[in-house]
Amino acid sequence: MGAQTSAVPDVVTGEPLAADHPGVTELFAVIAYGEVSAFYRLAEEAKLAPSLRGRVAVAKMAAAELAHFETLEAALAARGADAEASMAQYQGALDSYHASTDPSTWLESMVKFYVGDGLAADFYSEIVGVLPAEVAEVVREVLAETGHSQFVVDEVRSAVAASRSERDRLTLWGRRLLGEAITQAQYVMAQRDELAELVLAATGDLNGIATLFDRMQERHAARMAELGL
Amino acid sequence: MGAQTSAVPDVVTGEPLAADHPGVTELFAVIAYGEVSAFYRLAEEAKLAPSLRGRVAVAKMAAAELAHFETLEAALAARGADAEASMAQYQGALDSYHASTDPSTWLESMVKFYVGDGLAADFYSEIVGVLPAEVAEVVREVLAETGHSQFVVDEVRSAVAASRSERDRLTLWGRRLLGEAITQAQYVMAQRDELAELVLAATGDLNGIATLFDRMQERHAARMAELGL
Repeated sequence: MGAQTSAVPDVVTGEPLAADHPGVTELFAVIAYGEVSAFYRLAEEAKLAPSLRGRVAVAKMAAAELAHFETLEAALAARGADAEASMAQYQGALDSYHASTDPSTWLESMVKFYVGDGLAADFYSEIVGVLPAEVAEVVREVLAETGHSQFVVDEVRSAVAASRSERDRLTLWGRRLLGEAITQAQYVMAQRDELAELVLAATGDLNGIATLFDRMQERHAARMAELGL
Repeated sequence: MGAQTSAVPDVVTGEPLAADHPGVTELFAVIAYGEVSAFYRLAEEAKLAPSLRGRVAVAKMAAAELAHFETLEAALAARGADAEASMAQYQGALDSYHASTDPSTWLESMVKFYVGDGLAADFYSEIVGVLPAEVAEVVREVLAETGHSQFVVDEVRSAVAASRSERDRLTLWGRRLLGEAITQAQYVMAQRDELAELVLAATGDLNGIATLFDRMQERHAARMAELGL
């Protein structure tokens, strides 16, 4: 969390919300479906892997996403919510994101995993500041690095170092991922008042939401650079 | 393990093999590839699930298979063997098994998961008796029930109780799974002398191998009955 005296606001935190705020259940549900859909997309995209080693690496990434889902499922159950029932309404937006960013190569799949996980983590960590401590802890746990990023960074960096055209192609791909992610994030927020309220509590006002997306773009650029893009 | 005084031999155990017997690495490798391929087949077959609840249940089963793979990967590394390199030679036989038993319905997929996991566990537990203690422990750990069987049993039992034709169809399907599994198990054993040697050490001789397959068929029948088939 940045110093509040900084000229450029980092994360603006308002009053912490009550632990029983209905937006918390919605937040857990949307992240939970994000994990389930990431699991299945990774398993599907593993077909693009050039080797058994790549398939094993992807299976581990997918299993790590599912472990996060299980944490959220337990947190939802503790709030008296059923994971599947709560997640159902977010299927549309998240499935649309995946359908509109269907990778056609192994490298596109790797960039999508790295960039998509990063964007989701950025978005949710903007909200963490207004969450009650026990809720924030669950969110931080499921957004933590799964330890598989280094594999992805190595795969992508070495490929783009060797090919200028691959680098150009993946740079455009990264931009498309950012655009689609922001579109779907706005759609998800608009879908449920409780969730929009939670984001507004974290950002202060609509201007705050705009700067939130600005910060996400900056961090996205840093992640692309990390990949050599 | 059955009493050695029983008229029908249960598990015949010979002299324990040395911990550095090369068959142990092969055994770990074939089970490990079995787990990776089960992971990907389950993820693929989840498309047949009638609901998000089913997809979540299957994702958990797949992740449990991968956790077993990771145990074997560590055990292989401790023996100085690379998991991917060791597994490569077993891809053919196991991929053939899956290709020849590709489920066309959700219930076929569930029966395959239950019956296939059971057959693999039966086969490998026949060998456990001749393995050195630390090796046997790894094998027992990765063959342990993953706790998802009850979901499968419930799904299948209620479906076949409601439909006689579904029951007939799945009964035939179960027989086909048994046949294909035994075919591929024999193929795998024939492929590597070290592995055949290990199975022979456990069963005594070729007659012992025949009774091993007889026992597998008996246990298969008991599992089918459990499913209401």
